[in-house]
Amino acid sequence: MSEQDYAPFMREALALAQEGRFTACPNPTVGAVLVRDGRIVAGGFHRAAGDDHAEVACLKNAAEGSRETVGATLVVTLEPCKHCGKTPPCTDAILAAGIARVVVGLADPNPLAGGGSVRLREAGVEVIEGVLEQECRDLVADFLVWQETDRPYVILKMAATLDGRIAARNGQSRWIGSAASRRKVQQWRAGVGHCGGVVLVGGGTFRADNPRLTARDASVAGPQPLACVVTSCLPRADDAAFLPAERPLQTIFFTSPAAAGSVEADRLRRRGVRVLDYGYGPHDGADFVALMRTLRQETGSPYVLCEGGGRLALSLLEADMADEFRLHLAPSILGDNEAFPLFTGRAPLGMDEALRMRVSETSLCGGDVHLVLRPVV
Amino acid sequence: MSEQDYAPFMREALALAQEGRFTACPNPTVGAVLVRDGRIVAGGFHRAAGDDHAEVACLKNAAEGSRETVGATLVVTLEPCKHCGKTPPCTDAILAAGIARVVVGLADPNPLAGGGSVRLREAGVEVIEGVLEQECRDLVADFLVWQETDRPYVILKMAATLDGRIAARNGQSRWIGSAASRRKVQQWRAGVGHCGGVVLVGGGTFRADNPRLTARDASVAGPQPLACVVTSCLPRADDAAFLPAERPLQTIFFTSPAAAGSVEADRLRRRGVRVLDYGYGPHDGADFVALMRTLRQETGSPYVLCEGGGRLALSLLEADMADEFRLHLAPSILGDNEAFPLFTGRAPLGMDEALRMRVSETSLCGGDVHLVLRPVV
Repeated sequence: MSEQDYAPFMREALALAQEGRFTACPNPTVGAVLVRDGRIVAGGFHRAAGDDHAEVACLKNAAEGSRETVGATLVVTLEPCKHCGKTPPCTDAILAAGIARVVVGLADPNPLAGGGSVRLREAGVEVIEGVLEQECRDLVADFLVWQETDRPYVILKMAATLDGRIAARNGQSRWIGSAASRRKVQQWRAGVGHCGGVVLVGGGTFRADNPRLTARDASVAGPQPLACVVTSCLPRADDAAFLPAERPLQTIFFTSPAAAGSVEADRLRRRGVRVLDYGYGPHDGADFVALMRTLRQETGSPYVLCEGGGRLALSLLEADMADEFRLHLAPSILGDNEAFPLFTGRAPLGMDEALRMRVSETSLCGGDVHLVLRPVV
Repeated sequence: MSEQDYAPFMREALALAQEGRFTACPNPTVGAVLVRDGRIVAGGFHRAAGDDHAEVACLKNAAEGSRETVGATLVVTLEPCKHCGKTPPCTDAILAAGIARVVVGLADPNPLAGGGSVRLREAGVEVIEGVLEQECRDLVADFLVWQETDRPYVILKMAATLDGRIAARNGQSRWIGSAASRRKVQQWRAGVGHCGGVVLVGGGTFRADNPRLTARDASVAGPQPLACVVTSCLPRADDAAFLPAERPLQTIFFTSPAAAGSVEADRLRRRGVRVLDYGYGPHDGADFVALMRTLRQETGSPYVLCEGGGRLALSLLEADMADEFRLHLAPSILGDNEAFPLFTGRAPLGMDEALRMRVSETSLCGGDVHLVLRPVV
């Protein structure tokens, strides 16, 4: 079998790995499947730090199902570790199970954990590397940001019509996306909350929607995400907005240096709300690079889920601070240039000045198209 | 095996069927695969009227590859025919091959051809129906329009950025889509030309782009498509526009009743250009229902491929005259509300007034997202 032949199995391993999204943090999400005679006979993923790694979970799953592992092929999204961390090395478990061939998506980017493939080859196991490498790298994009930077991993989420509108001319945006799409967003909020993350919105969304930014009806248990608002215009402390009134200890405002030093900021602080200075970036706006670093230092947050609006979203994209752009497109058309656009504020003179991204996933959800886009490196 | 288990095989049959898109006209596109021991061992599709139907093509393919057909399962997108047309009944070929089970996507909507499943069951073959029925119905949406109406099947094609822009504020639209996306469009033009179809644009696109509307570098051989322009403003006969100057016999203008009766229209007619009256529809625009019927009567065209611009596209959508909307989204963002929008001209007051469609396919092509949308019935 060639590398290409293992792609369908790697896709299954990738899908399994997603089960550990948010819960595996601060570890990478990893999935594995066991293949015999061209069929998947067992699978596993890494659920949480301290739990079995995906390879071991898969081999245990095989043992429980009385599947023979001797001579089988193990397909895993990330190179198996050969070091002792919270759990024993996966290479030992693979050798003990008599696996004949290991198919790896991405070589381990962590020098401490790397070397697994070499160890397996030395022990006589065939190792094939680089199957769906880009997809496997995208799977651990969050982990790579944690390893390589001092900021959180930023997920930007927007919902629009086919013609790129986020609200009708009257401001109505309920509901652009399908019920299934909205449930997905609730699950992400819950996931982000589970690992101490933040949901971020701009001042326009804060004032227009008076949002709670909590996860409702979600299957992932755990604490609610922190709420963060970026705005040059702080609310009054006696204002009835939900976040400062009902969730003060979980709310953070990032505002201009002047507003952060104001009396109004101190009034908010006395209620328990955190009010921080966003510095000054290009065009007198916030410095999003510094903002994200501060957010990580202040809260330890590994994830930021930004839910708009369009101005904040575009600022993040222009500052290269959107690691993942999840765009939900509803199959509807407003056909109205007075309706609210996905993004506004740029004035490119030609197509060559467009911001470019890369499509990393497409799927259908409750009738909507879900796209995942990533920065072009 | 349940119906669901046959879905992956039906998907392969659907993909094969697409090979006959445009060439099978006026017959439906059909694909078939032969399955033994859970694997596809042969496949076939209907290439052209008079050629083998997909089932027979698949069985011949199996025979050439020395694949045993006795006891095997045949998966086919459309119910096998039991009537004698240009070729013998497929049911006879299936029975002669000793097929044990036939899995059907869509029951034949043509009463003359129908009854194949009953015939097979009477002869002791197991028949499973309705696997991926919607996808199989979408596959023959063109055929259903030909059967049920007196107009061509209309494909609307647009390319836009992620944020729904078809050109930058300076009017530049080259190139929004990837080279691979543009090659696809050339193939469609060639396919539409192959069966005597029409490429349609609006007056704005005609005047701005001075297009040729021919297929270039395409793999499908055959005549060029006819060119059709819908415009209230006819060009002058001595104008240097490519279509009336270089392709007069292949060019049709649809214009207002007044313009169709003008001296300028007669000058164009003397060059061989056809100038027709588009009647009056809602809002003083063209009557697109009548226009399409006229186009079919005048040219016999089975397909119309509309390539924009946005006003014409929206008119077709509003008149329910876009059977298939192929939207190519490039992973780029202009972020400029002065850039040209996909559609304009409507003024819906809320989201509930949006035009709704249904996503029927999503795929990736050269970095772009390709969506196929269809009317909600």
